[in-house]
Amino acid sequence: MIPMIRNFSERLIVQEVAPRDGLQIEPTWVPTDAKVALIDQLSSAGFTRIEAGSFVSPKAIPALRDGAEVFARIRRQPGVVYVALIPNMRGAQRAFQAGADELNLVMSASQTHNRANMRMRCEDSLAAFADIVPLTAGTAVTLNGTVATAFGCPFEGAIDEDRVLAIVDHYLAIGIGAITLADTTGMANPRQVARLVERVLGRLPASALTLHFHNTRGLGLANVLAAYEAGARRFDAALGGLGGCPFAPGASGNICTEDLVNLCQEIGIETGIDLPKLIAMSRRLPALLGHEVPGQVAKAGRNCDLHPAPWERESAAA
Amino acid sequence: MIPMIRNFSERLIVQEVAPRDGLQIEPTWVPTDAKVALIDQLSSAGFTRIEAGSFVSPKAIPALRDGAEVFARIRRQPGVVYVALIPNMRGAQRAFQAGADELNLVMSASQTHNRANMRMRCEDSLAAFADIVPLTAGTAVTLNGTVATAFGCPFEGAIDEDRVLAIVDHYLAIGIGAITLADTTGMANPRQVARLVERVLGRLPASALTLHFHNTRGLGLANVLAAYEAGARRFDAALGGLGGCPFAPGASGNICTEDLVNLCQEIGIETGIDLPKLIAMSRRLPALLGHEVPGQVAKAGRNCDLHPAPWERESAAA
Repeated sequence: MIPMIRNFSERLIVQEVAPRDGLQIEPTWVPTDAKVALIDQLSSAGFTRIEAGSFVSPKAIPALRDGAEVFARIRRQPGVVYVALIPNMRGAQRAFQAGADELNLVMSASQTHNRANMRMRCEDSLAAFADIVPLTAGTAVTLNGTVATAFGCPFEGAIDEDRVLAIVDHYLAIGIGAITLADTTGMANPRQVARLVERVLGRLPASALTLHFHNTRGLGLANVLAAYEAGARRFDAALGGLGGCPFAPGASGNICTEDLVNLCQEIGIETGIDLPKLIAMSRRLPALLGHEVPGQVAKAGRNCDLHPAPWERESAAA
Repeated sequence: MIPMIRNFSERLIVQEVAPRDGLQIEPTWVPTDAKVALIDQLSSAGFTRIEAGSFVSPKAIPALRDGAEVFARIRRQPGVVYVALIPNMRGAQRAFQAGADELNLVMSASQTHNRANMRMRCEDSLAAFADIVPLTAGTAVTLNGTVATAFGCPFEGAIDEDRVLAIVDHYLAIGIGAITLADTTGMANPRQVARLVERVLGRLPASALTLHFHNTRGLGLANVLAAYEAGARRFDAALGGLGGCPFAPGASGNICTEDLVNLCQEIGIETGIDLPKLIAMSRRLPALLGHEVPGQVAKAGRNCDLHPAPWERESAAA
């Protein structure tokens, strides 16, 4: 009997978010050329979904102020959905014009976090999203609704599960059928994740649910396994584990894509993603960003990347 | 239904290994005074087991050459077992004389790794261990047998499970009833861990089995949960996540004690360990060692360490 991961034959879908959540807090300006090159390389690595930018106030997030230009210049691969993060109607209009395939609407379950990040009440975010739905009706552009701080808020602490479910229900009621539960500052634990995923999967199919974990307290991949075991199949992750938390200098950011793909390969879950290509890309990030990145597999290599025994090294050096 | 962690009410025992596995590859000399202070602080933080040093060749591991002096000078707390790591008879005699409560005999499942680290064949390690058993017979000193590279070898790759079980059986046959399965370079995955733990727990009780994981590829805590779910209850961990891998510069070391204790608190598993004290100790490690350490919770704080909202910070600054 293997207690964990009963249905490990089912594919796990990774949505790569380094171009958006990974870069948004980087102090170094990443030129548009480099962003486009990063996304184009990701497009050829087997991803089916890439969050390519956000359309928020350039004052709030100057690192991503070139979102429209990025969307205009990337080489779109057939079968890849290019997603844009959206806080409000103005952002939705800009992303729609820029040609995003999907608008990922984001609000926080926490009033305090929503006020800090979106400068409005949760109710006002939801009202704005209801107005966005008609914008994409009858087009090929899809909508996703994110519930940020769904597992905890750095200002308020614990977030009531029923509050998260009420926001999910609101998204569904206004016609947004795909949902992301986001652990914005890495406060989730595996038991909580399993419980909330099971409750949400009573409302929508696994193909419409994404989990967004941060590794802030070292639990990112454990949370993925708990969510997968509970039936979730789609996960956000960032190359190199980019995307640190503003409240935790030096702590890890998003769960690391190559670490997640490595885990999947080791336990036999298919992702369709080219791990050696990812590792090579991750190893170039420090030169791009001017600092080390948290991902482990790019430093350690895969299990199958064996080392010569000491006496073999000695004879090679001799 | 909560799919993971069915018996989470059972206590998880953490054996702190920072003084041994954590310090052994540090390039900076940690003075004996500092080692003794570290162990004495750990003794007062709620641990019941501390691996306090090793008795190996001082040429092989100069960082731990003061093992006997460390054992002589620590203030022993009642109820705490102070363990010494031992590769051979010479080490066993020295540790016994130094007053170690437990000798942790170590060999590798991999012939190549055993030859590289112990300079002998696996068979010769096991023969030497059989000679050590009479040394402690009739004394209060206990023996533990470690199987290093039990989940993979950096030189050989995959290690056959039956080979690991045969070594466990050999330990049991020569009268060593407590076993550690060690993932020496972080190659284990949760499915493999669950399977091997279940097989080993067919041979000895959970109270006699320790799991030793490294977080080299980011899977350390996921492996702990898989092992716990499969019935394991004792785990090695190192303060700050010390103990990096010689083959992976910059990669994580042992699983991080405070990250593990934080996980346990969040999901409701008792450890008896004082987390705020651990975090305070971990935050002093960079000054002691001259570099950042991999642990996450010491950087991020606990979930309950809330942050002021931006407008509260502004008014506080005004």
